[in-house]
Amino acid sequence: MPSRILKPTSPKQALQKLVETIHLKIVDYEELPVSEAVGRVLFEDIVSKVNIPRNDVSVMDGYAIRYRDTLTASTKNPVRLTVIGKQHLSESPSEIKVEEGQAVYITTGAPIPMGADAVVMVEYARVVGDQIELRRAVKEGDFIARVGEDIHEGLVLKKGSVLRPQDVGLLTGIWEFKVKTLRKPKVAVLPVGDELTDFDERKPGKKVDNYSLIISKLIEDLGAKPQKMDVAPDDPKEIADRILSVIDVVDMVVTISGISVGEKDVVSDAVALLEPGGLLVHGVKMKPGRVAGLGVIRQKPFIALPGFIISTIAAFYTFAAPTIAHMLGLGFTAPLPILKAKITREVKGVALLNFIPVSVKVVEEGFVAEPVLGGSSVLRRLIQANGFIYVDPGGAIEEGKEVDVTLFGVHELSYLYA
Amino acid sequence: MPSRILKPTSPKQALQKLVETIHLKIVDYEELPVSEAVGRVLFEDIVSKVNIPRNDVSVMDGYAIRYRDTLTASTKNPVRLTVIGKQHLSESPSEIKVEEGQAVYITTGAPIPMGADAVVMVEYARVVGDQIELRRAVKEGDFIARVGEDIHEGLVLKKGSVLRPQDVGLLTGIWEFKVKTLRKPKVAVLPVGDELTDFDERKPGKKVDNYSLIISKLIEDLGAKPQKMDVAPDDPKEIADRILSVIDVVDMVVTISGISVGEKDVVSDAVALLEPGGLLVHGVKMKPGRVAGLGVIRQKPFIALPGFIISTIAAFYTFAAPTIAHMLGLGFTAPLPILKAKITREVKGVALLNFIPVSVKVVEEGFVAEPVLGGSSVLRRLIQANGFIYVDPGGAIEEGKEVDVTLFGVHELSYLYA
Repeated sequence: MPSRILKPTSPKQALQKLVETIHLKIVDYEELPVSEAVGRVLFEDIVSKVNIPRNDVSVMDGYAIRYRDTLTASTKNPVRLTVIGKQHLSESPSEIKVEEGQAVYITTGAPIPMGADAVVMVEYARVVGDQIELRRAVKEGDFIARVGEDIHEGLVLKKGSVLRPQDVGLLTGIWEFKVKTLRKPKVAVLPVGDELTDFDERKPGKKVDNYSLIISKLIEDLGAKPQKMDVAPDDPKEIADRILSVIDVVDMVVTISGISVGEKDVVSDAVALLEPGGLLVHGVKMKPGRVAGLGVIRQKPFIALPGFIISTIAAFYTFAAPTIAHMLGLGFTAPLPILKAKITREVKGVALLNFIPVSVKVVEEGFVAEPVLGGSSVLRRLIQANGFIYVDPGGAIEEGKEVDVTLFGVHELSYLYA
Repeated sequence: MPSRILKPTSPKQALQKLVETIHLKIVDYEELPVSEAVGRVLFEDIVSKVNIPRNDVSVMDGYAIRYRDTLTASTKNPVRLTVIGKQHLSESPSEIKVEEGQAVYITTGAPIPMGADAVVMVEYARVVGDQIELRRAVKEGDFIARVGEDIHEGLVLKKGSVLRPQDVGLLTGIWEFKVKTLRKPKVAVLPVGDELTDFDERKPGKKVDNYSLIISKLIEDLGAKPQKMDVAPDDPKEIADRILSVIDVVDMVVTISGISVGEKDVVSDAVALLEPGGLLVHGVKMKPGRVAGLGVIRQKPFIALPGFIISTIAAFYTFAAPTIAHMLGLGFTAPLPILKAKITREVKGVALLNFIPVSVKVVEEGFVAEPVLGGSSVLRRLIQANGFIYVDPGGAIEEGKEVDVTLFGVHELSYLYA
């Protein structure tokens, strides 16, 4: 059995080690209907082959005219123009020509006839026989949308960007109804511990495994696909078998608990069975989360999260979240909201990098962050908190100082206002 | 045919009128497995019937001891304690008693034996026959989780709160595997216009209906369930029939386009056919979005969004989003992130409340907001922007001034860092 003595690495170096050892970014794509692509990473540059609108078009039902004809129009001196025809929808530019003193009835979206340089809304044109009467001047270009004004030919969306509602609207607008998106990374989540039971069975003295659900949902929030597995016992062979059973169909494995240095902390042994030397890092210079491990199993990243919930979460956000972001090509910043908030009371750090849950609230002047202190096994701290801060090793933060708070998820910010 | 003359109302009053006329909040629930309840509004107070942990328990594999016995322990003067038994997992408090000079082997999660007031980790206890040798003092309470420390009996989550990953983790932890959530409001989205085609058909001179997809996805983001309908022609009877076909199964109807005062703007006529006087408001004192309508059809809220995309979006965020928030019981603040950002250049308002898309960026000092100007039919502005500001009627904002930016959706903030 390999030694289980921690060799603490700085969190930054730990992550660096993982990145240098394997290629993380997902390289294959999934083609999706655009209506299902919101939140997905674009796998290709989107180049529009069309201009929308295709021509200069009217944005109103009205009359296409020459604006100079209206310059003298007023209630006292209305201007009359002769209606010479109608312009309806068509893909081609209009073939009608508007001369001085003339107007053409035009519908919304129809191409502007030659000679016309403005549109007057139907409700401002009084029809008098075959003429219209205008009682005020119009400006050049009024109610005309120029060719390509809405969407222009050429690059419209860049590979690697994350699709939002308006982006899929744009794709639809240029008749692109399917889109290639980066395949979602699949992440196996394996809870470990003789003291745990799965959801469906309640046993005396046992605790239900709830942390793997939290971690799975956070993984989902980050744009990856969790595969929550059943609880594994504190048995290295069994843990190794469970990992082996999914390693070929997932992109990453995360275990929860069993990574400390006690008798029953056998996750490191399991890794040694699967891939000697695979555990690149065991022990990180942070608190909580000190016993976390990072490694590689069969060319897939592996992250061993500690078993106390605040440690679990600290290691998740410090190692797993950025690894997932990297897989999605979003660089090393996990796609999580970061805010500047004033801390409500002094925080004293510890000798290691200190991860502290905080509760951000909205006040008149902006955001304030209240540290949510307590033991590292207290789930209640996560219920009270909505984000976290780091305090540098040996550092402290004075009351009222501005800190960068990372929210637990994209939704936390909106709940602030709920 | 009723008159189509706008009677502009202030946006605030328009919304107020809608709220006073009908009850908006959803009153029924949907029971869901907790694993599917993230993002949903809790329909009931959650009262924990249990303490987690149930007793004072060890959070490590180690030895339960009396801390006073270790006060003199050092490398030079180790203390020896006699191991009198083992304490494994159980639902009940331990029946073993630890006396002076004694220790009990204990596993993670097991109840602390009587008399013991600290746990020493297994790796700091050298086993010597039936004794353990300790080389340093431990503190009272070390590695003990107190009864109810993780989750306590009583109210743990409040009715009306939005469930996050940690909240469903808590529910699971107290053996609540199903939860009652507010039913999602269903919102019909009906695009109107002879110039539009649905996705599946491409016709000369016609524009594909893409705005209804954008609006549907934004509705989804807000926690409601969109029902995107096919394009309706500019025919009041047909529009009325379409609305009638869904009114009994949805909680709200949103139309896009056809609400101005031109010949083909027949949405107001359609409402008149369905419910005379149902259009409570036609015309609002904002720009763009001036022609929006708010009303009630068969006791369901109805919002008529204008057809130019920036107007559509302005009216959506000003009227539809808060209405949805109200249906979810989230009050009148739409569940959207709001940030303070410095505006990058002077913005001159207009005579009406001015809705301006902005692009928020992260800089060293915080957030800056760049106004994204242009015509109200320019979709590109939404692609460049990620949120919006309001400028008061007749107001202006100096360069560098701090403004409140509402992001288009919860995800926009995270993309800032991507």
